[in-house]
Amino acid sequence: MNMLVDGEWRTDAGEYTDDDGSFERQETTFRDRIRDDPDARFQPEAGRYHLYVSYACPWAHRTLVVRALKGLEDAISVSVVDPYRDEDGWQFTPDKEGCTRDPVLDADYLRELYVEADSDVTGRVSVPVLWDTQEGTIVNNESKEIMRMLDTEFGEVADRDVDLYPADLQDDVDRIIDEIYEPINNGVYRAGFATKQGPYDDAVDDLFAALDHWDDVLADQRYLAGDRLTEADIAMFTTLVRFDNVYHTHFMCNVQYVREYENLWPYLRDLYQTPGVAETVNMDHIKEHYYTTHPDVNPNRIIARGPDLAFEAPHDRDELPGGPPSALAGASADD
Amino acid sequence: MNMLVDGEWRTDAGEYTDDDGSFERQETTFRDRIRDDPDARFQPEAGRYHLYVSYACPWAHRTLVVRALKGLEDAISVSVVDPYRDEDGWQFTPDKEGCTRDPVLDADYLRELYVEADSDVTGRVSVPVLWDTQEGTIVNNESKEIMRMLDTEFGEVADRDVDLYPADLQDDVDRIIDEIYEPINNGVYRAGFATKQGPYDDAVDDLFAALDHWDDVLADQRYLAGDRLTEADIAMFTTLVRFDNVYHTHFMCNVQYVREYENLWPYLRDLYQTPGVAETVNMDHIKEHYYTTHPDVNPNRIIARGPDLAFEAPHDRDELPGGPPSALAGASADD
Repeated sequence: MNMLVDGEWRTDAGEYTDDDGSFERQETTFRDRIRDDPDARFQPEAGRYHLYVSYACPWAHRTLVVRALKGLEDAISVSVVDPYRDEDGWQFTPDKEGCTRDPVLDADYLRELYVEADSDVTGRVSVPVLWDTQEGTIVNNESKEIMRMLDTEFGEVADRDVDLYPADLQDDVDRIIDEIYEPINNGVYRAGFATKQGPYDDAVDDLFAALDHWDDVLADQRYLAGDRLTEADIAMFTTLVRFDNVYHTHFMCNVQYVREYENLWPYLRDLYQTPGVAETVNMDHIKEHYYTTHPDVNPNRIIARGPDLAFEAPHDRDELPGGPPSALAGASADD
Repeated sequence: MNMLVDGEWRTDAGEYTDDDGSFERQETTFRDRIRDDPDARFQPEAGRYHLYVSYACPWAHRTLVVRALKGLEDAISVSVVDPYRDEDGWQFTPDKEGCTRDPVLDADYLRELYVEADSDVTGRVSVPVLWDTQEGTIVNNESKEIMRMLDTEFGEVADRDVDLYPADLQDDVDRIIDEIYEPINNGVYRAGFATKQGPYDDAVDDLFAALDHWDDVLADQRYLAGDRLTEADIAMFTTLVRFDNVYHTHFMCNVQYVREYENLWPYLRDLYQTPGVAETVNMDHIKEHYYTTHPDVNPNRIIARGPDLAFEAPHDRDELPGGPPSALAGASADD
């Protein structure tokens, strides 16, 4: 595994899988919080924070969606890394379509930001990274926590009054985010990175049981937690939008396409068509990343064609109660 | 590439792909013919010929289907090799489910039959192989030609009067077999074994254009050549029946499933339900072979779950004119 050990870049620091062939995701390293509190070390301020993402990464993608829905584009700047990741890890290739430079350190590699934040850092170099330009350090690199901070702590800074963690649904949202993580969000990786048949079979069983379950739930309600769009939907969205073109084939999650599900597929289109969301989806980066970055899975690095998905097709989900936050009416990513 | 060179087994005899990354299928070696003619060297006789197949191989599968439809099970015996093929090539593992021994030489490897037939043979060791127990040699190892011989030369020997190459359709059947070969039958291999993006993209373009074309054709006619089941359908069948579970994911032919095609999918079920055909399909051997035999494509050798296909579901193709040969009415593989 490629990771930082005591601030040094190592390409031989153990394996991604256990002895039994199961994929084990490593813990993230930086876990501070932005809080809307005058005593907090990290307070919400426009222009203070910078977000590092890959369009390819479903975890980073969560933070981009919240940033778009809340109208935080002007308040929080973004850098996009190269979708192709080699043994040097995520890197900056500003000349490549859709990619940007690093305005903080003018770094070549994302790992330089990690070392700048903590010269003795040990851990994987992952996206998203939320950087504080005031203190010159990483606030957090855990997608669920960045999503939550952007959603709940930037009330005055955000352009729009969009609440994706409503007070009366917080227990449900937290429960659902946890519930879908292992079988679905991480489940596709457990299937794809398994090196033995047993762990793969277990992952596929769990994944499709969970998709079947949520397909049933979504027959009667517009969103995972009921009639309001929440963070739980965003957590589901970034996996579903990659499913048919990447996880299905590259990670061999091929029991069926999401587009074959009676409710998940219209649900996915509904989310995609929510103002601001489509602009966060870069399918070229998504496909290039997965198919070219994992030679242990796809040695020839050929990018599979995949189905042509009609994300823009009508979804009829508005026949169910509820809908996207009213503040999004007429909004677009260019607001 | 593993092949015989001057009768010696070599595991380093060149590559499967050209310099440009395109898969190139090698020519078959033995091309004699059985003919229903008293002057022919190889004449149709019950009990004289032995057929070597893999249930996994679509080319070998063609010959098994003709053998079943014609009722040649008692006249032509069969050996089934292990679906897993390593660097020693196809081998006999009679203790494994669905596999048999070699009754001719009691060989461990199929290549021994090739060398017995020609001690200086050069070429790939492939299935099917049609063996003549009388002369102790290989008659032919080209699937299209074996299919034709079994179909047209065993009239008196076959249990059933089934003609899959009708006199008035012969030009059409030959044309269609040729027309579907490159984009479809071989096209899935061109996609799966391409080592560069360009050849893969070309193969996928050709493949799905051809599938789209035949899906249109099959809207108005029950079979590829019209209202009668012919060898062309058998050539198409053995590719289609493998498609959703193997070629789609393992060979990244993932634009859509066959089961998503309006006409190809009922057509495939119609063929599958033709008496005798289902018994020639061993999906366990098919999946084990592809997923475990090509580490250059699937390094962890994990067998993808794949969709559960309802081959037995009603197909409604009998609303179109024509149907299977009348001699098959009430027939089964156990006849």
